[in-house]
Amino acid sequence: MSLSELKKTHPDHWKMAAAIRILAADAVHAAKSGHQGMPIGMADAATVLFEKHLKFDASAPDWEDRDRFILSAGHGSMLIYALLHLTGYKDMTMEEIKNFRQWGAKTAGHPEYGHAKGIETTTGPLGQGISNAVGFAMAEQALAARFGKKVVDHYTYVIAGDGCLMEGVSHEAIGLAGKQKLGKLIVLWDDNNITIDGTAELSDVTDQAKRFKAAGWSVFEVDGHDPDAIDAAITAAKKTNTPSMIACKTVIAAGVDGVENTSGGHGYNIKDAQLEQMRKFYDWPYPAYEIPKDVADAWRAIGARGATERADWETRFAALSENKQGEFKRVFAGDVPNRLSAVIKRLKKKISEEQPKMATRQSSQAALEVINPIMQETIGGSADLTGSNNTLTADLGTFDADNRKGRHVYYGIREHGMAAAMNGMALHGGIRPYGGTFMCFTDYARPSMRLSALMGVPVVYVMTHDSIGLGEDGPTHQPVEHLAISRATPNTNVFRPADTVETAEAWELAVTSKSTPSVMSLTRQGLRTVRTDHKNKNMTAFGAYTLAKEVAKRQVILMATGSEVEIALDAKEALEAEGIGTRVVSMPCWELFEAQDEKYRKSVLPGGSVRVAVEAGARQGWDRWLFGERGRAGRGAFVGMESFGASAPADELYQKFGITSEVVAKTAKDLLK
Amino acid sequence: MSLSELKKTHPDHWKMAAAIRILAADAVHAAKSGHQGMPIGMADAATVLFEKHLKFDASAPDWEDRDRFILSAGHGSMLIYALLHLTGYKDMTMEEIKNFRQWGAKTAGHPEYGHAKGIETTTGPLGQGISNAVGFAMAEQALAARFGKKVVDHYTYVIAGDGCLMEGVSHEAIGLAGKQKLGKLIVLWDDNNITIDGTAELSDVTDQAKRFKAAGWSVFEVDGHDPDAIDAAITAAKKTNTPSMIACKTVIAAGVDGVENTSGGHGYNIKDAQLEQMRKFYDWPYPAYEIPKDVADAWRAIGARGATERADWETRFAALSENKQGEFKRVFAGDVPNRLSAVIKRLKKKISEEQPKMATRQSSQAALEVINPIMQETIGGSADLTGSNNTLTADLGTFDADNRKGRHVYYGIREHGMAAAMNGMALHGGIRPYGGTFMCFTDYARPSMRLSALMGVPVVYVMTHDSIGLGEDGPTHQPVEHLAISRATPNTNVFRPADTVETAEAWELAVTSKSTPSVMSLTRQGLRTVRTDHKNKNMTAFGAYTLAKEVAKRQVILMATGSEVEIALDAKEALEAEGIGTRVVSMPCWELFEAQDEKYRKSVLPGGSVRVAVEAGARQGWDRWLFGERGRAGRGAFVGMESFGASAPADELYQKFGITSEVVAKTAKDLLK
Repeated sequence: MSLSELKKTHPDHWKMAAAIRILAADAVHAAKSGHQGMPIGMADAATVLFEKHLKFDASAPDWEDRDRFILSAGHGSMLIYALLHLTGYKDMTMEEIKNFRQWGAKTAGHPEYGHAKGIETTTGPLGQGISNAVGFAMAEQALAARFGKKVVDHYTYVIAGDGCLMEGVSHEAIGLAGKQKLGKLIVLWDDNNITIDGTAELSDVTDQAKRFKAAGWSVFEVDGHDPDAIDAAITAAKKTNTPSMIACKTVIAAGVDGVENTSGGHGYNIKDAQLEQMRKFYDWPYPAYEIPKDVADAWRAIGARGATERADWETRFAALSENKQGEFKRVFAGDVPNRLSAVIKRLKKKISEEQPKMATRQSSQAALEVINPIMQETIGGSADLTGSNNTLTADLGTFDADNRKGRHVYYGIREHGMAAAMNGMALHGGIRPYGGTFMCFTDYARPSMRLSALMGVPVVYVMTHDSIGLGEDGPTHQPVEHLAISRATPNTNVFRPADTVETAEAWELAVTSKSTPSVMSLTRQGLRTVRTDHKNKNMTAFGAYTLAKEVAKRQVILMATGSEVEIALDAKEALEAEGIGTRVVSMPCWELFEAQDEKYRKSVLPGGSVRVAVEAGARQGWDRWLFGERGRAGRGAFVGMESFGASAPADELYQKFGITSEVVAKTAKDLLK
Repeated sequence: MSLSELKKTHPDHWKMAAAIRILAADAVHAAKSGHQGMPIGMADAATVLFEKHLKFDASAPDWEDRDRFILSAGHGSMLIYALLHLTGYKDMTMEEIKNFRQWGAKTAGHPEYGHAKGIETTTGPLGQGISNAVGFAMAEQALAARFGKKVVDHYTYVIAGDGCLMEGVSHEAIGLAGKQKLGKLIVLWDDNNITIDGTAELSDVTDQAKRFKAAGWSVFEVDGHDPDAIDAAITAAKKTNTPSMIACKTVIAAGVDGVENTSGGHGYNIKDAQLEQMRKFYDWPYPAYEIPKDVADAWRAIGARGATERADWETRFAALSENKQGEFKRVFAGDVPNRLSAVIKRLKKKISEEQPKMATRQSSQAALEVINPIMQETIGGSADLTGSNNTLTADLGTFDADNRKGRHVYYGIREHGMAAAMNGMALHGGIRPYGGTFMCFTDYARPSMRLSALMGVPVVYVMTHDSIGLGEDGPTHQPVEHLAISRATPNTNVFRPADTVETAEAWELAVTSKSTPSVMSLTRQGLRTVRTDHKNKNMTAFGAYTLAKEVAKRQVILMATGSEVEIALDAKEALEAEGIGTRVVSMPCWELFEAQDEKYRKSVLPGGSVRVAVEAGARQGWDRWLFGERGRAGRGAFVGMESFGASAPADELYQKFGITSEVVAKTAKDLLK
């Protein structure tokens, strides 16, 4: 449908969509940066979605059963800002729109989760939103199975662009959604055939309809400027038992002379004269940031439309048993059950008494075996390494189309898609996701792991086989730099527990977190129990603590994590035998140690000793603990990896790479010379 | 075809394939780790490929025009080790097979490039091989266009598994290959319907044939145990003008009782009795590692088959002009032309004289403008940010199906696929690839970037918009931890040049490298020229150097990289004005500085001063330079990022995050107190 036809046939729609278009163009023009092309092109589809389908109540943006709307093509952020403003979300004022992309504004360059209500997830890195959406749709199904369809029954809508669909993660997401038959996931593809470099065909000739069908999706193809066609497609999509993709054929920057239908229309590029011409084209004589009353009222009515539906929902919710209501509220608040602390303590006590030799990936399973039964909100999974990552506990069952009560997901060989889906589940609320892969494949999941941290969602990454200790699989599978990678990332708790006790403590912290993701760095190889004196207190919560005090006068402090703690203990024994007082500090979580007050930190790492850090990974970051923040701690040295690993049995690798108690003891003695 | 039928109808083939199967089973059994399932399942297809199609000469494994064979499903490494041994590759002795997965063996857990001839690329991290293959096929086309089909005319064959096809990077690779119409790329998919967790349907229901067709591929579906069908499919695939996927329906661990056709057959799991039963099934009465003469001879004949073809090729090569022969040899050796040094010096001199203010991404383009015309082996590209990454120079033209002489690739929104393809091009030989994206999207390309480093291929990553200096796009696009990520990775040169002169020097080093990838960290924002005294010497080659000497007696050393060098210079000016002698050290490449001798390093960073490092990124790693390797350098402090960034104009962000000359000067003075 040509825009002039649209104007004639749908005059009310025309005005409402124009409000979005003009707001987007004005805000980008004012900021001298941003992207008006997509909001202008998709304004018709978005208007139909919000007007006719999206279940929401702008006055209650946290309503748990709202439909979720995800702008996967996050660069078109003005589309969502305009929609939130127009429909009356309280915190999306016109002042915020005027401050688009300025310091402190809720209207960041890309939609940032937490900046304003209605932004369900942070997007911008392409492919993430559509992949988060799979997690949203899974969460909806899981919660519906648990709490009933009367209180959980909503759709997840996505607007995605060519970029989202070219990114590899979209393949993983689409495959997972197709397998999981997520019928309430509906993706609107902004099929404008334009990318930054030019027409999409410059780089891609994929038949997206065929591609989605191959993955088990229903596909609809419509004119993205025809409100009736869009409406009909969404209506049909809602009825399918498969996820749906609606290809909306649109014109980028439609109606803007000179850049319409070109890559020039994508980003900030509109001159004053073009803005003026655009206003004429859209019959919009109003100055920037002014919305005429009739249009404003129509949009406000859409924002208020869900109030009745929500009231009905409240009634249905009130009809749930008190117990169920409490549990529903608890899981959406992200609170842990009271019993958690007790079951963790019991496990710790048992382990400290029995002192088993276990790989910490098995310790992790032991912790999950006591956590999962009392935290029904967990959904575990693995990227096709279930038996290796030890993520499946006895009571979980498999989450799939036939069993939405199942709580373990076979994610397939999709580390990135898994991480993105976990973000989506956590963002949806009511679910606490964890998922496993080999630690080396942090690399595959990185874009989503960074977003967990940036958004502050408490996803737990179960990263097993965390060093050369994985042995024969060799350097492609042996992490070296991956602890450094996660530690360098802000707002990420990296746990590297030394035994089952620390692992249980780490899990307690991870599932208690409300705003920080956790990375569990876990061994393939067996480790002895080093926490042999039971303490009720969660020592891992301190980040680092004195595991073994010096006997002779302290000359050396050995710092270690995970599998290297037992090496440090052995080195201590050798040093003490020579009369060299040696303290061993276990440092399972740097970030939590850094958060302690200076007094505590100094009590664990006092001055006046030489320090040796030992970890089977890259040195990077350790200097902070060797020398202190300003270099006043004195001398120190590091024992660890300086290169990639190799393929051989684990014990041999530790010998060959010189990560042994002998080397640690010698290094300490050299420093004392 | 059932295996018993195969045995009857193809007795010679049966024996030859059995040799692979038994070798794989024996080696995995001996190592007590590894994966026999895939080699056993794909032995028939691999035998046909090597016997009837693969153009190679085992006695000349570096023959530039050989067909490339890539085992994307790298866990099945015994398949390629067996093939290389059987066909007579000199360095793949039976001793190596016996030492499968042991220290020092060429037979690592996964195929490692450089360990033995015939291993074209390192695989194991799934999806990488098939994505490298796209680069191999592009390289072949580019070199054929340049040097003629008489000397460059070969196929690229891949064996990929379900894991490779589920990984997101495969989507990017398949899309790129389809768009590029890489007709000489042929993928054999081991369609065994088994993954580690169970049947593939547990996690995926994608119709792979439809999926590949949607991306513009030709698809063939065959019984993977029927030699004639495989042969016919490969023959047909070779004739298409599109890339081809041959779905080979196979049985994992075929013929091994108890684990055949189950995930139990995937990895090490075969007991002695099963090995014995398997030997009977395959009529293989020979002890481990013994190959009967008739079978050995037949395989050796295959390895020698290409000798004639190669001799013909040598004749054709000799008929090229001397100039062309020399150029061909030069680009395959990875040598730079003699003129390189002169053109870089000329550019540096011009810049030092004119002292322009430029973003280093523009500086990078300026360097490429002088490099590309004299190094016809470069192939540049960008993941849909060509104008932002400044990767396209005047003379390149677009590489596509209609113009194989073009040297700039529109990779699309496929950072990971781009990186993997670049690895493939570099591994093919004759091409020096570079490709751009925003530095933050290092995350998307990480798995392939790590493999560049592990394999030692000199790919150049052009990472622009390298800090909060990118401004309004906000924290999703602002790297914070990404310098740390690349620096933590072994064998990676991370260049963060301060101006055009350093950028030109960095490029000279990057295109001269033969075994180390380079990451170029480049600004969006304009920087002033800091190297105003022309020096012929490449100062960046030292990794760090004194850019501005102290005037008053030295009390402070300021260390900085990239956009923060000018901040350090301003701080120096302020400090010197107060009589505090201050040295500014520019550190464009830590790795090269670390490689200098101690004397040089001490001359740049002498003791006895306080040190302040300034970089708009995470602190991690800087302590090494602040305090020295063993903490003897004294006091120091860091000025940089402690959190994610924000969305606002760049200058404002530098102020808000406290990365200014005032803060640097104050930090230094505080340390002096």
